[in-house]
Amino acid sequence: MKKIILFHISLCLSILSSFAQDLSEYVNPFIGSTNYGATNPGAIVPRGMVSVVPFNTAGEGTGKEKDSDWVSFPYDHTNTLFSGFSHVNLSGVGCPDLGAIILMPTTGELKVETEEYATTYSQEDASAGYYTNVLDRYGVKTEVSATQRAGISRFHFPAGEANIMMNLGQALSNESGGMVKMVNEQEIEGMRMVGTFCYNDPTSIYPVYFVMKVDQTAERKGIWQKHRKNNGVEGNWMAAYNGQNRILEDAYFPVLGDSLGAFFSYDFAEPTQVEVKIGVSYVSIENARENLEKEIGEKNFEQVVGNAKAQWNEVLSNVAVEGGSEDDKTVFYTSLYHSMIHPNIINDENGDYPVSKTRKTGKVENGDRYTVFSLWDTYRSLHPLLTLLYPEQQLDMVNSMLAIYDESGWLPKWELNSTETFTMVGDPASIVIADTYLKGLDKFDEQKAFEAILKNAYPIESGNPVRPGVAEYIENGYVPVDVELDEKVWGSVSTTLEYAVADWSISQYAKAIGNKEKHKEFLERAYGYRKLFDKNSKFLRPKYANGKWHEPFDPAHGANFQHNIGYVEGNAYQYNLMAQFDIPQLIKLFGGTKEIDKRLEMIFEEGHYDMANEPDIAYPYIYNYMKGYEYKTQERVLKLREEHFTNQPDGIAGNDDTGTMSAWTVFSMMGIYPDAPAVPRYALTTPAFDQITITLDQNHWKGEKITIKKEGNSNLIDAIYVNGKKQKSFFINHSDLVDGAEIIFKMKNQ
Amino acid sequence: MKKIILFHISLCLSILSSFAQDLSEYVNPFIGSTNYGATNPGAIVPRGMVSVVPFNTAGEGTGKEKDSDWVSFPYDHTNTLFSGFSHVNLSGVGCPDLGAIILMPTTGELKVETEEYATTYSQEDASAGYYTNVLDRYGVKTEVSATQRAGISRFHFPAGEANIMMNLGQALSNESGGMVKMVNEQEIEGMRMVGTFCYNDPTSIYPVYFVMKVDQTAERKGIWQKHRKNNGVEGNWMAAYNGQNRILEDAYFPVLGDSLGAFFSYDFAEPTQVEVKIGVSYVSIENARENLEKEIGEKNFEQVVGNAKAQWNEVLSNVAVEGGSEDDKTVFYTSLYHSMIHPNIINDENGDYPVSKTRKTGKVENGDRYTVFSLWDTYRSLHPLLTLLYPEQQLDMVNSMLAIYDESGWLPKWELNSTETFTMVGDPASIVIADTYLKGLDKFDEQKAFEAILKNAYPIESGNPVRPGVAEYIENGYVPVDVELDEKVWGSVSTTLEYAVADWSISQYAKAIGNKEKHKEFLERAYGYRKLFDKNSKFLRPKYANGKWHEPFDPAHGANFQHNIGYVEGNAYQYNLMAQFDIPQLIKLFGGTKEIDKRLEMIFEEGHYDMANEPDIAYPYIYNYMKGYEYKTQERVLKLREEHFTNQPDGIAGNDDTGTMSAWTVFSMMGIYPDAPAVPRYALTTPAFDQITITLDQNHWKGEKITIKKEGNSNLIDAIYVNGKKQKSFFINHSDLVDGAEIIFKMKNQ
Repeated sequence: MKKIILFHISLCLSILSSFAQDLSEYVNPFIGSTNYGATNPGAIVPRGMVSVVPFNTAGEGTGKEKDSDWVSFPYDHTNTLFSGFSHVNLSGVGCPDLGAIILMPTTGELKVETEEYATTYSQEDASAGYYTNVLDRYGVKTEVSATQRAGISRFHFPAGEANIMMNLGQALSNESGGMVKMVNEQEIEGMRMVGTFCYNDPTSIYPVYFVMKVDQTAERKGIWQKHRKNNGVEGNWMAAYNGQNRILEDAYFPVLGDSLGAFFSYDFAEPTQVEVKIGVSYVSIENARENLEKEIGEKNFEQVVGNAKAQWNEVLSNVAVEGGSEDDKTVFYTSLYHSMIHPNIINDENGDYPVSKTRKTGKVENGDRYTVFSLWDTYRSLHPLLTLLYPEQQLDMVNSMLAIYDESGWLPKWELNSTETFTMVGDPASIVIADTYLKGLDKFDEQKAFEAILKNAYPIESGNPVRPGVAEYIENGYVPVDVELDEKVWGSVSTTLEYAVADWSISQYAKAIGNKEKHKEFLERAYGYRKLFDKNSKFLRPKYANGKWHEPFDPAHGANFQHNIGYVEGNAYQYNLMAQFDIPQLIKLFGGTKEIDKRLEMIFEEGHYDMANEPDIAYPYIYNYMKGYEYKTQERVLKLREEHFTNQPDGIAGNDDTGTMSAWTVFSMMGIYPDAPAVPRYALTTPAFDQITITLDQNHWKGEKITIKKEGNSNLIDAIYVNGKKQKSFFINHSDLVDGAEIIFKMKNQ
Repeated sequence: MKKIILFHISLCLSILSSFAQDLSEYVNPFIGSTNYGATNPGAIVPRGMVSVVPFNTAGEGTGKEKDSDWVSFPYDHTNTLFSGFSHVNLSGVGCPDLGAIILMPTTGELKVETEEYATTYSQEDASAGYYTNVLDRYGVKTEVSATQRAGISRFHFPAGEANIMMNLGQALSNESGGMVKMVNEQEIEGMRMVGTFCYNDPTSIYPVYFVMKVDQTAERKGIWQKHRKNNGVEGNWMAAYNGQNRILEDAYFPVLGDSLGAFFSYDFAEPTQVEVKIGVSYVSIENARENLEKEIGEKNFEQVVGNAKAQWNEVLSNVAVEGGSEDDKTVFYTSLYHSMIHPNIINDENGDYPVSKTRKTGKVENGDRYTVFSLWDTYRSLHPLLTLLYPEQQLDMVNSMLAIYDESGWLPKWELNSTETFTMVGDPASIVIADTYLKGLDKFDEQKAFEAILKNAYPIESGNPVRPGVAEYIENGYVPVDVELDEKVWGSVSTTLEYAVADWSISQYAKAIGNKEKHKEFLERAYGYRKLFDKNSKFLRPKYANGKWHEPFDPAHGANFQHNIGYVEGNAYQYNLMAQFDIPQLIKLFGGTKEIDKRLEMIFEEGHYDMANEPDIAYPYIYNYMKGYEYKTQERVLKLREEHFTNQPDGIAGNDDTGTMSAWTVFSMMGIYPDAPAVPRYALTTPAFDQITITLDQNHWKGEKITIKKEGNSNLIDAIYVNGKKQKSFFINHSDLVDGAEIIFKMKNQ
């Protein structure tokens, strides 16, 4: 049934615009593409392995230059120099990687170095699955689109000399090394090394494979390779090409090296369109070719664009909204769109995928194999969103995590294309698995999952790579600052909190599967963080094993990524209330709602709140635990949304973190927010729309749909009705929601 | 029959030493391995694609360091630092290339850079198909051998940590770029770029493929790859590995880059032998694997060595000698051995080979495809030797040359692994083809050959790449120095002489195939060089198109590779008498035998003769054209042999030039020398042995054998008898020789 619809839509693209719900029109892929949002306007389909992204972060003078600063994105909206379309990319991440397999059209004499051929551009536009611009220097209009594992580009060349280049020397990744081979007059194949994301594991390098086809035979074609400069006396004899690029015409053999590429050059008598199709795989060139054949094959550009838009419409239509401004709708659907990029599939059409670390070839048995697990970020909002809206995907992701455990011996922490990057702190996989299970998605091996979770949770002789401070954490109830000063952990307070949230999650999982002993043990462990609460300052502070506080202590120090003893990417304010599972106890520790409200006022009003990073993103929902203060959740969430999440290129507050911020926005705009991991419940706030209808996946949830209505025009809630019954609290249980709740927010009169 | 013998010999290696004619024992592979002979003591079989050569020209302090000077060899006997066994190598050439696929055993901690692991060595020994040494730093005894397309190494490790490394970052070649992949626990595969021999064509780069197997499972194994240094600000974040090597353990995927390798590491409880087998191909990894399987497969080291020795015995036994000193025999058979290295086969076991330039896969239909055609050198002595002794190989070589013409549009000039390096001057392919044909080897397409030869011989609009000065040469009868001053040709006199010898050859070929017109035309062209003869100085001098001599003129300038207007790698003395086809006319131009004798005395006695380069190597045979002076040929040849060709590492006069000097030695020691290309005749001189018996190939020659006897003890010839008939001249026709001549040299009484 689904296939028929897709087919129909692809054939009737022109009709699309007349559909009542062409939701893809509410996607503005430029949102988040500057101000370090790190998203991009490239063409992609939901969870695609491939995205076709305008690459504009290379070359002096472009703006944020990739090698001159911490530039973690292939594209920035304020940059000016375009140097091609990269075909494997990360969206919304904080470290550079991928941004490789760069396709560039030029005209005139062939120039193969980015610095020589980069150009300003104009007439830029993008929509879900489509991007276009005009290259000023060349007068070439570009258009690109994508399938899950392939990209397609259409270049409109003026008459005269034209070049299509595949540059394997350039990339956002700091890695190098490539191979390219001409297969026939219209096809090349190759691979390119990428990896070492976030500089944590220098050995995490690996190739990505591709096959590229052009639809027209070139006049001149071949490969270039840069000679590795010889500094010896002998270099004199090769002066003319020492360290220079060489053009190998008609080179039907693999060429290898750190800097190389391939080209097709034309002499067009009249303006001409050329279509370029590129298939990608993380397994092999053969699979890249098969992916290309199966996903694009003989389809033309229009058909691929039509399919891409249809796929976006399909996934976006899970949530229908009514009312709200056009900008609100755009922010909402773009946030949903950004939630559908990572984790992405890594398996090929035929099911092959690279096994963790060794990269031997594995085969998925059912479902998809997912990658790009930025779990420290995503456990907080993205995975709960996927659990609710796309449970089949979420289950595939959990099963992918368990497969990674089988392959590597450890659950993922920050997994990228079958490598573990060991980025950030804590034990987030346990949280995701527990939260998923507790919400009723249990189609995975629950005993294996428990075994995997428990492995993460205890010390091992050779050192636990996921929880390096776990021995001392167990011994003391918290990670003592001593361990941090020994450089064994990063941020002893932050790490304690992450371990605590993980342990809370494990305790709840243990309870759910009937293991009382572990439930108790981990519950006790989860509460250990309380020992870091300093009653005087009312902050969680770094503490020595001997019980003394680390000095000096400045709760404001550590904002904006300053290095700060005790805290990871933040300060004492931003971690003050991160123990979401334990907010009632925190309120007690503070001395009651009034006291904690004071602290929240201080945080929000004195500039200590950081919407751009994850630890405090649930803070605005804390008021829902404070009777009489719930309206502040409604006010703060609205204010934060309006301030940080807008229909502008800078409309995401800092790194999107593979959709974490976008998922926060989606939830917050729907008026429900999963504030506490492994607590199957949502905090409620004012929705952004008059009506929201969530179509539930009947394979996993009992209800057909969730209906959220806002009645009245103010932003403050007067009363909440669930299935016609007035609610006492500002929370709703997950089970009530997915049974098909109708929530009516009656708003106060203004 | 041949196979049965080989099999028998390989099984009975121990019996070999008792054979009357274990001629391989007379091979001293160290001859020519210093003093720029550029040969090496590595293990090889006749015309093998693979040689396993001790690589000792890398690393500060080794002696002649490859990047610090013009070092064209992987090994020099006076060098001291061993850094592995390279598996593709050139022997006796004047430019660096290949010296790649370097296998290195070490002990202790794994170090992957040449500078870190290179070691002095001792107990070095070598014989045909076998080399051994002991690595001082590691206490490892190494032994290596080879088949045509594969190498085998046996390492004797002491107890403790041991490493076997395949270094693809290092090579004699100035090119870089490689790929390596672990296939399973005991096997890796990969490729490595090589090329740009002699710096003439920067685009002549291409991969060589290999598969490597170790016979024991390692404790640790994987790949290393060097990070390309990032000089941007971002480099700070990767400080720990920026520009450094990374070790990727258990990396079962292709790793690419300019500098990388693979390793197997062991913890041996007791001293242990490890065998390493490496198959090579210029077509594909699959073919490299097939070559390895078919040629070595399950054979052990002893069997491979036995087969290699048997193959050498088989080819060396074409010439049996009696009498002479042990050193004479060693020089002789080692020279014959050096004549059997290049040209070498490039086709795989299955017949695949890389087509010229595009390197698409071609398939040989019958015979072998040969490569490494250093024709400016080899037309003078090597190809005539192969024509006489190994006509089947010579025909395969001519057919390979014609296939190269089919593929690339041009006959080879200095062809290397399906690339044309455009090294040296002239049009040597025409000479080789004509000489071969005129001697009666005609199993090739004579019309196609003529077409190919003629294409080389005329100007073409886009510029004739083989004979760049041919238009002016035709116009003037010689290449005017104007063309040289315009940097269009190198050495106008030398180039004129090379064109003249080629044109002489073409004229003779035309005559032989009945083309009178071309015979006449090219004969006339051949004589044009005479216009460069300056009657006053009696030198061939650079001349302008307007007929004026280039000034200043110093006939002695240009020795030892000084740059010298008019001459290529030489001076006016060394080209004075190079027109061997025209010696009688030269004698006339000089004003008779007395005058030319004066010049020869001046050349030989005043230090103007250069035995180390080709243009004058036939000079000592000129006396045979001068009645009454023939004894000087006998004296000079003997003296040159004894001075320059000895049983010592410096026992070749300069570059062996892929066997050219060695072939000169073989001929000169047999007492017959093909002094004039495309004149099917040999000059005679005193043989080095009492009796020489050449077994003739019955498929090509009428006679069963040639017998050369020396009767009497002096070195001066009294009379020569051929088949019992006293000879009038000091020449013998090729046809008489191959009809099975018995030549008896009656020596003068001392």
